[in-house]
Amino acid sequence: MPPEITVRRGERSYPIHFCVDCLGRIGSFARRLNPSGKCAVLTDENVGPLYGDTVCGSLAAEGFEPHRISIPAGEEQKNLQRFGRLCEELVEAGLDRKSLLVALGGGVVGDIGGFVAASYMRGIPYLQVPTTLLAQVDSSVGGKTAVNLPQGKNLVGAFYQPAGVFIDTSVLQTLPGRELRAGMVEVIKHGIIRDAAYFAWIEGHLEELMALEGDAVLHAVQRSCEVKAQVVAADEREGGLRAILNYGHTVAHALEALSSYGKFRHGEAVAVGMEVAAALARRHLGLGESDARRQRELLKRLGVPTRMEDVGAEEIMRKIGQDKKTLGGTPRFVLARRIGQVEVCADVPLQAVRDALLACGAEP
Amino acid sequence: MPPEITVRRGERSYPIHFCVDCLGRIGSFARRLNPSGKCAVLTDENVGPLYGDTVCGSLAAEGFEPHRISIPAGEEQKNLQRFGRLCEELVEAGLDRKSLLVALGGGVVGDIGGFVAASYMRGIPYLQVPTTLLAQVDSSVGGKTAVNLPQGKNLVGAFYQPAGVFIDTSVLQTLPGRELRAGMVEVIKHGIIRDAAYFAWIEGHLEELMALEGDAVLHAVQRSCEVKAQVVAADEREGGLRAILNYGHTVAHALEALSSYGKFRHGEAVAVGMEVAAALARRHLGLGESDARRQRELLKRLGVPTRMEDVGAEEIMRKIGQDKKTLGGTPRFVLARRIGQVEVCADVPLQAVRDALLACGAEP
Repeated sequence: MPPEITVRRGERSYPIHFCVDCLGRIGSFARRLNPSGKCAVLTDENVGPLYGDTVCGSLAAEGFEPHRISIPAGEEQKNLQRFGRLCEELVEAGLDRKSLLVALGGGVVGDIGGFVAASYMRGIPYLQVPTTLLAQVDSSVGGKTAVNLPQGKNLVGAFYQPAGVFIDTSVLQTLPGRELRAGMVEVIKHGIIRDAAYFAWIEGHLEELMALEGDAVLHAVQRSCEVKAQVVAADEREGGLRAILNYGHTVAHALEALSSYGKFRHGEAVAVGMEVAAALARRHLGLGESDARRQRELLKRLGVPTRMEDVGAEEIMRKIGQDKKTLGGTPRFVLARRIGQVEVCADVPLQAVRDALLACGAEP
Repeated sequence: MPPEITVRRGERSYPIHFCVDCLGRIGSFARRLNPSGKCAVLTDENVGPLYGDTVCGSLAAEGFEPHRISIPAGEEQKNLQRFGRLCEELVEAGLDRKSLLVALGGGVVGDIGGFVAASYMRGIPYLQVPTTLLAQVDSSVGGKTAVNLPQGKNLVGAFYQPAGVFIDTSVLQTLPGRELRAGMVEVIKHGIIRDAAYFAWIEGHLEELMALEGDAVLHAVQRSCEVKAQVVAADEREGGLRAILNYGHTVAHALEALSSYGKFRHGEAVAVGMEVAAALARRHLGLGESDARRQRELLKRLGVPTRMEDVGAEEIMRKIGQDKKTLGGTPRFVLARRIGQVEVCADVPLQAVRDALLACGAEP
């Protein structure tokens, strides 16, 4: 398998580097991409104690002067107040517009770190060093950066591509099991939206993946990044193809917002959203019962929720109306025609959405 | 004279429309550029009462549903707290990612409105409708958007081009004289950095300009926009040519930050900065005494400050060190070799900077 793939975006492109037990080589990867001296390493209080020294040491060995910034862990950190404090800290640390930001952590660190890099002095280069499965297979690739507003997730941000992505799959060994399962939901999503053979491979290797067997994990992370990179290369801004990555996300974002980002891991909310999408697709696109069952069974084997609890259908409908994916009041859903092939549907009747929510456990 | 010029930025370009007493036609200009229904009109408490009804009425007549947002006037509004509240208000108003934002006001409204447009749902289209001379000849063109941090001006923002710029020079009739003089400093700057004949024309027409005689003002606004558009088209991100627009700005930003953006109008600070640049250029680039005198005389005729007061050279030096234009600790200055020709200098000795500051009234 190749150790690196390239994400192409018009005139710009950037490498995704894959390796095992290799965080100590991040300095040379960074040096290759950026000639600056100053850099900041943004991490959180879970990841920093595990990998901060290795990463900062490797950067220092290559002549960088890393300034380490640690934020508390958790989605509730992904807000504009934290964003502002981080920007101020970069000023105080003396970073200029050529300096590098390294985002070492999961999706929260990557999303807010990316938006800081996009905005600080109107944009400085940054590296994604994702340490969760979710971030490795999804959020670190594609240049979407954002913070949340009280009204919803990722409502303020930028499309801003990293200078590079550095993925060491061995860091997943320290990931809590719940995070691993949540991340695996996006891996399954990649199979459903784009690659039926990959979906079947996941069905056949779920136990190896959950046991973090090296070859299986490396294959899944690479294949998922390839799927995402292909989709993103075709379309940075979701005018068209990129929207398929939002499979399961219309309902997921509503569920996360309603629980103030606390109850669900993102991947867990996506799993429920995928089940709502399957119920909708059964009626709206003729998705076969056997394909719907394969999705449900795989999610159940994984051990993530497939139904919602303690949430009303009407409040979800209202949140969907505030989602970025809603245009002119019409919600857009990504629905599967079959495993490996999905479509963006802007013509799903609201009553059908309500029915699907109820079928997946929402309260009337 | 042409009623419109086009700013080219790679694959994207946008029109700047010039006209007199024409705000009531903004709806059709907006309709031409954007098919959406919802839009927001951001303005401030000075400009809103004067022109808000005309603009919103014109937009409504073309089928838009304008949601009007007014913020207090003043540079101190250009901060991240206000930015966050504006983003939340767009959610509450139901704007989606195709909706249009209209920034109706001076540089503050344009800068923060542009950054809101750049960031809300990762970017929505926006129109600049500048109502100050400064905004008409400078900040509305070029796609620089930003807010300030406590540590300095414009430290957080984005390069994000508007869908169009709509300039009605007759709105300058309601502009306070001090704002008019401050804006004229940037007009003079355009002559010095790029066009000696334009500088001479300004010398010959300053009284007509200050009396807001229609033809003279329209000519100056158009010619200044042309100069700016040419420079920006060559270079969006200040790698090269664009940096010349920062003539006078290295010191100006420091002065504004030190006075917490309160004491100086931006153009007034730039005037002082231009005088510091001239003092530096006399020694460093061999700028002739007669050219330096022409700049000083024109600024004095205009009635803007050309010297600083009550501020120490050392605190200015420290602020310059935090500026975006400072790379690797070396401040960059745009200096004139002669009127109409400037260069970016990264090798100005710090002692020479200190001497120039003292020569322009800074305290030892």
